[in-house]
Amino acid sequence: MSARTLLVKAHVLLILFSYMSEKCHAQEAATSHEKLLKISESIVQTALNDTAGYHLLRRLSRIGPRLSGSKNAAEAVRWAEAAMKDLGLKAWLQEVTVPRWERGKIEKAKIVRSKAGKGRALCIASLGRSIGTPNGGITAGVIEVRSFEELAEKKEQARGKIVFFNRPMDPATIRTFSAYGSAVNQRVDGAVEAAKAGGVAAIVRSVTTKYDNVPHVGVMRYQQGVRRIPSAAIGLKDADFLSECLRHDPDLRIRLTMSCRNRDPVPSYNVIGDLTGTEKPDELIVVGGHFDSWDKGDGSHDDGAGCIQALEVLNLFQRLGIRPKRTLRAVFFMDEEMTQSGARAYGAYSASCEERHVAAIEADRCAYTPRGFYVDSDDVILEKIRSWLPYLNRALIEWVEKGGSGADVGQIKNASARIGYVPDVQRCFDVHHSDNDVFAEIHPREMELGAAAMAILVYLIDQEGL
Amino acid sequence: MSARTLLVKAHVLLILFSYMSEKCHAQEAATSHEKLLKISESIVQTALNDTAGYHLLRRLSRIGPRLSGSKNAAEAVRWAEAAMKDLGLKAWLQEVTVPRWERGKIEKAKIVRSKAGKGRALCIASLGRSIGTPNGGITAGVIEVRSFEELAEKKEQARGKIVFFNRPMDPATIRTFSAYGSAVNQRVDGAVEAAKAGGVAAIVRSVTTKYDNVPHVGVMRYQQGVRRIPSAAIGLKDADFLSECLRHDPDLRIRLTMSCRNRDPVPSYNVIGDLTGTEKPDELIVVGGHFDSWDKGDGSHDDGAGCIQALEVLNLFQRLGIRPKRTLRAVFFMDEEMTQSGARAYGAYSASCEERHVAAIEADRCAYTPRGFYVDSDDVILEKIRSWLPYLNRALIEWVEKGGSGADVGQIKNASARIGYVPDVQRCFDVHHSDNDVFAEIHPREMELGAAAMAILVYLIDQEGL
Repeated sequence: MSARTLLVKAHVLLILFSYMSEKCHAQEAATSHEKLLKISESIVQTALNDTAGYHLLRRLSRIGPRLSGSKNAAEAVRWAEAAMKDLGLKAWLQEVTVPRWERGKIEKAKIVRSKAGKGRALCIASLGRSIGTPNGGITAGVIEVRSFEELAEKKEQARGKIVFFNRPMDPATIRTFSAYGSAVNQRVDGAVEAAKAGGVAAIVRSVTTKYDNVPHVGVMRYQQGVRRIPSAAIGLKDADFLSECLRHDPDLRIRLTMSCRNRDPVPSYNVIGDLTGTEKPDELIVVGGHFDSWDKGDGSHDDGAGCIQALEVLNLFQRLGIRPKRTLRAVFFMDEEMTQSGARAYGAYSASCEERHVAAIEADRCAYTPRGFYVDSDDVILEKIRSWLPYLNRALIEWVEKGGSGADVGQIKNASARIGYVPDVQRCFDVHHSDNDVFAEIHPREMELGAAAMAILVYLIDQEGL
Repeated sequence: MSARTLLVKAHVLLILFSYMSEKCHAQEAATSHEKLLKISESIVQTALNDTAGYHLLRRLSRIGPRLSGSKNAAEAVRWAEAAMKDLGLKAWLQEVTVPRWERGKIEKAKIVRSKAGKGRALCIASLGRSIGTPNGGITAGVIEVRSFEELAEKKEQARGKIVFFNRPMDPATIRTFSAYGSAVNQRVDGAVEAAKAGGVAAIVRSVTTKYDNVPHVGVMRYQQGVRRIPSAAIGLKDADFLSECLRHDPDLRIRLTMSCRNRDPVPSYNVIGDLTGTEKPDELIVVGGHFDSWDKGDGSHDDGAGCIQALEVLNLFQRLGIRPKRTLRAVFFMDEEMTQSGARAYGAYSASCEERHVAAIEADRCAYTPRGFYVDSDDVILEKIRSWLPYLNRALIEWVEKGGSGADVGQIKNASARIGYVPDVQRCFDVHHSDNDVFAEIHPREMELGAAAMAILVYLIDQEGL
């Protein structure tokens, strides 16, 4: 055999080998792709078949709303720890100190002097962390404004008045969370701005997309050096009624009576459940929501569902007999609504603990049908997660974009990726922080698809790392 | 100047020209892209701001359900023609002959002899086009099966019995319309199969995703040469109750009494509204839904919303002052639910009319948040429509796929594209063909986003042709 023939043969062998190796790789990749598709489908099917998370949320929601520092919140913590143990997780509590605010029994507003609507009661609810009024209430005239700028212009007329912030949440914005963000300064800082202008109280148009008369509450805050005045949300129909009355009679007066108060902080807990990894138990993948809610409705969407979806993610692994390599952790963060003390406590722990936080996913945008994930990470990781769309799409995830995760997992600064789960958001602010947020508003399929979407993502992170 | 210099200059000029021309084209393309994005956003914002279609649907739904051939359907036709004229459209009626079926006042089922549940009434509803029972009802034993195959195996036991088809709609299927398709043969052909086996009536587990006790109706059919027997749907809770009773007492007997009947066909109408094109009035872009509904609930989702969304598409053009080049046409097809006589009448007309049908879009999958479009066309057109995703996405459309359009526009065979609008479908079969399908289940934002999605698509087809 000539050297040339040898060379040719070697060349042919090389080509053959490289072809087979490529084919092998391609086959392996195809097998892996098929396998991942199949597992993703199994996760979705199991979630939809059992709706176990949905039934668990029903049990949680029966406790009632879980305002930070309340008896209900304490009962819910005990319930959650037991529920995690029942599911075979390693459950533990992380102590945090939370504010305690009580609504009290009285919150009412009445038009007491007007040509138009005298004696008419208005549907209001005290805002979280607001002080109450003196016992007999505050009786004063009303000035309506739509912005802090307008209030500044009308400063002279605001003295001694109740400032009525009446800028609607923009209905034309398709991203309801953006519209919320553009309107919510009235609720958060309205009392401070009103007080600066000499106002005696603040009434804020509910930040909601639903045209009914249910007040939507939420946190407000005071500012050092600025007089503290009471602040309340008003239902949309009564906001429009009051606005109409003011047009006919700018001198009408309202009596506002609120018995809410701030009490001493109390101890509470983040509730944590671990499914220990088989190969890399020191690497953590966190899924969480916040466990406190407002004291209206029962906090099923905001954010009971997010917590139970996190638990359902771990439980889907168990029901499918998938033993994760890394440790999967469900965290129910306490006190997101008022001071994020739970998030900060977990954040501090994550900065110094021995385990590595690989990823942390937050579910706090209600429990409707999945749409996408926001990822807070470097671009390589973002692209890696985006490459998983064919699998995530099995649970109706359509997109993966750079974006913020959430108030809770955002505190886990050293995680390689902080991720926010995004369902359809058109209905969120119908129920948000109000008596509309009840278990009957949860759809079992939609909630379970959210859990399935996160379970697929967690599975891929667990398998492939970040 | 040498020839060479001249050549170089000419070359430079050519490059410059070609560069400027390219730049110009790029600029034009960018301008056009920006312009289309802006128009798409205006369409969405206008829809969400006004929710005019939503308010129009409220008015339609107040008429009540619109069973083909009923008084309500006739009233709805008059209302729709007037509503179209009010909106400044050219309104016209296309006569069709529709079947007339009446539910009658009596539909009940009772366990009359059993160790387990004697005297217990079961929640049923006659299926559309079923015959009634004799006056005193039918009293017989019951055989439960899950498929026609199982019925064939148990043929000997079925003689003289009521056949109870109890196969559930598969909850694990994410595409609820597929799950529906896999279960609905029991409803459509159950009576024929039961009669072939010697059965005296058929009771069919409601084809629904919602676990309550509301019967979900729909059409059934008979077959020439096979004995006609009555057929009814049963609510899910009572289907499970009956199944449980049968386990304890296979000999239990039911009395089924139904007074429904088929009457002579009557004349009815497709209702059509045109917004005439300014440049190519003979080219038609159709948007439509079906105007008839079942006689349960008020037919708001199925398919009042689809019709009113079609109207809202045209009205969005009007509110935005966009004068279409081609003629936009809203078609409210009559009698989709029973015999598709409206679709066939329009299909026959479209085959012979002078106008060219460019595209036809159908909205008949409920009125939840937009997800995608199915396109029935050649691949070039499919790709063209897919290239519009950046604009369609402004109304939350995430995908454009090859697929079926719908029972109505599917009859417009010569259209370049028949398109099916696809919203989120997780809740559709909760309400479908039942008392759950009422206006209160319509979400204004979700319905309007659907209209906006179709309006953007219609705008692009009108501008660029197909």
